[in-house]
Amino acid sequence: MDIRTPSTTHLTDAQRIDWLRLIRSDNVGPRTFRSLINHFGSARAALERLPDLARRGGAARSGRIRSEDDARTELAASQRLGVSLLAPDEAGYPPRLAVLDDAPPLLGVRGALEALMRPVIAIVGSRNASGAGLKLAGTLARDLGDAGFVIASGLARGIDQAAHRASIESGTVAVLAGGHDRIYPPEHEDLLAKIIGNGGAAISEMPMGHVPRARDFPRRNRLISGAALGVVVVEAALRSGSLITARIAAEQGREVFAVPGSPLDPRAAGTNDLIKQGATLTTCAADVIDAVEPIMGRPIELREPDDDPLAHEPDASDRARITGLLGPTPILLDDLIRMAETSPAMARTVLLELELAGRLERHGGGLVSLI
Amino acid sequence: MDIRTPSTTHLTDAQRIDWLRLIRSDNVGPRTFRSLINHFGSARAALERLPDLARRGGAARSGRIRSEDDARTELAASQRLGVSLLAPDEAGYPPRLAVLDDAPPLLGVRGALEALMRPVIAIVGSRNASGAGLKLAGTLARDLGDAGFVIASGLARGIDQAAHRASIESGTVAVLAGGHDRIYPPEHEDLLAKIIGNGGAAISEMPMGHVPRARDFPRRNRLISGAALGVVVVEAALRSGSLITARIAAEQGREVFAVPGSPLDPRAAGTNDLIKQGATLTTCAADVIDAVEPIMGRPIELREPDDDPLAHEPDASDRARITGLLGPTPILLDDLIRMAETSPAMARTVLLELELAGRLERHGGGLVSLI
Repeated sequence: MDIRTPSTTHLTDAQRIDWLRLIRSDNVGPRTFRSLINHFGSARAALERLPDLARRGGAARSGRIRSEDDARTELAASQRLGVSLLAPDEAGYPPRLAVLDDAPPLLGVRGALEALMRPVIAIVGSRNASGAGLKLAGTLARDLGDAGFVIASGLARGIDQAAHRASIESGTVAVLAGGHDRIYPPEHEDLLAKIIGNGGAAISEMPMGHVPRARDFPRRNRLISGAALGVVVVEAALRSGSLITARIAAEQGREVFAVPGSPLDPRAAGTNDLIKQGATLTTCAADVIDAVEPIMGRPIELREPDDDPLAHEPDASDRARITGLLGPTPILLDDLIRMAETSPAMARTVLLELELAGRLERHGGGLVSLI
Repeated sequence: MDIRTPSTTHLTDAQRIDWLRLIRSDNVGPRTFRSLINHFGSARAALERLPDLARRGGAARSGRIRSEDDARTELAASQRLGVSLLAPDEAGYPPRLAVLDDAPPLLGVRGALEALMRPVIAIVGSRNASGAGLKLAGTLARDLGDAGFVIASGLARGIDQAAHRASIESGTVAVLAGGHDRIYPPEHEDLLAKIIGNGGAAISEMPMGHVPRARDFPRRNRLISGAALGVVVVEAALRSGSLITARIAAEQGREVFAVPGSPLDPRAAGTNDLIKQGATLTTCAADVIDAVEPIMGRPIELREPDDDPLAHEPDASDRARITGLLGPTPILLDDLIRMAETSPAMARTVLLELELAGRLERHGGGLVSLI
């Protein structure tokens, strides 16, 4: 099973359990998951090799590998809530999300899978929004919904909530930072029920029971923009979470839209800044539609197959040289390869081992650091 | 005397009277003035030939030629108010304005000529401005003034007034739509006195006693943008005069800056639209300074010498063919030349004759129509 090629392939029940065990094991993120599957051919084979790889990366003790029982328990709990755990090549997995490098190997999807297959526009913004901002978010969501787009947002207070509410009839998707049974904020459980009850959906990459922590929100934000053709930021102060979403969206090649505001309004400082940096100034749905229409017809680009890192066996001196160049300050993978005078494949193998040993952190934009 | 080459040349008193007579004669605008001077070598020679040229253009009766007495009267009245009538190559004539195709051949300048030689930024916007808009106009004018720029504006209520007031100390220029003795609005005579009294200036291309009419304002606006490195539009509704200034500024190759606002605020509709069309989103003086600094060092481009239209003598059939292609709907000069299968010079000669006969109207962007 190659997760790179979207198809109508379905995982078998046994494969799905293996995939779930692998992605829920310590130090295995979406990118590592993909490397492992590509190399070993199956999650089952990768699970068997994990302890050995982590030891080579210098792990003091082997990271926890999720047991089959735990995986079955999670799968059953998901099914009880009507959550399907879908692989990127299965129907219902948002197609634009599926082709990202760090697409969740299993995405928890609840509600109408159909909504996730339609073109999506994300609308995000401040929790502490102004009346004008809430009104604009609602108008944009309604008009984009009428034009056939599904609205994605983060179910937060403020702009997110206004965008969801205005698109309940036409279809909206809540992208969660925690498990499907840990809705944040809790008072939006009713809103989520309405979303699901009206042909919308909710998605999460987190296990059932996972209470969202602060650091889960930026991670979640990549799913909001990743599922969408473009992201509209309605109101955002400087250094706010919505700007992180906008940055990730730009890195993912998504269109970024920003609603302008008075320079005297601090809630417009972030959006005005986005426009200065090249985001499309947006006052109405037509501004969004005009920009994404040319993209919609275009076939979604498939991910480039990874060069298989594990095909290149490093020796002790390779490991020492590459690890020695790493420190707590993030550096570019490209710079690391140049400085180590090694092949990209060799460097990636060492990084994968370090990652499985829990010693490597991957930041955005190709930056890595030692933990 | 060639008005194309800025120099330190001064007009003699007699020449200034001739220039004033010519530019104040019927159907002689700045562009026609320039063609006539270039062809006949002097205003005096052009004045002698005007009746003949207008007759060839089909004028029923010769347009009024300003008498020498009238010109002397205007010059004396100007001098009494401290207004100098300057040619584009004389010190005190704003250098960027001087090199425009339609630079006024004689510009009435009152106040500190020095202010007009410094780098100018124009700030314009709605008369019916919001408190936030007035505050922003003031902040921008003050900060740009502190950075060494002279602020040009139109002495109107609202944004113009706020921009002038905030830059009285650092230097500001009022660009008038009427004569220097016909200040509009009248209640801004005090403001103008303060501007002049603090090292600022006022400029106008209109004769003393000229009460500004509605159509004089768009014409005046080309002087605001023409004198400046760039134009900042602070608040502007759709289809407002400030947007005309912005359009002319873009045609003149000036930088256009616009202050954004909420899509729910109609006073921001024009500025948001300008940003959509490529104007620089502006929230503070640094946005303006960053954009104009690279231009400031650059030498001002001289105007290309006109091809002399009168060197090409059209015959009756040339006149009939070219005139026959013209109608009340404006068409592009380039299209006219192509359709008439004539040389550009020949077409321009016929157009000049028609213009002197009062039968031709020149619009912006190379468009012409019959009256």
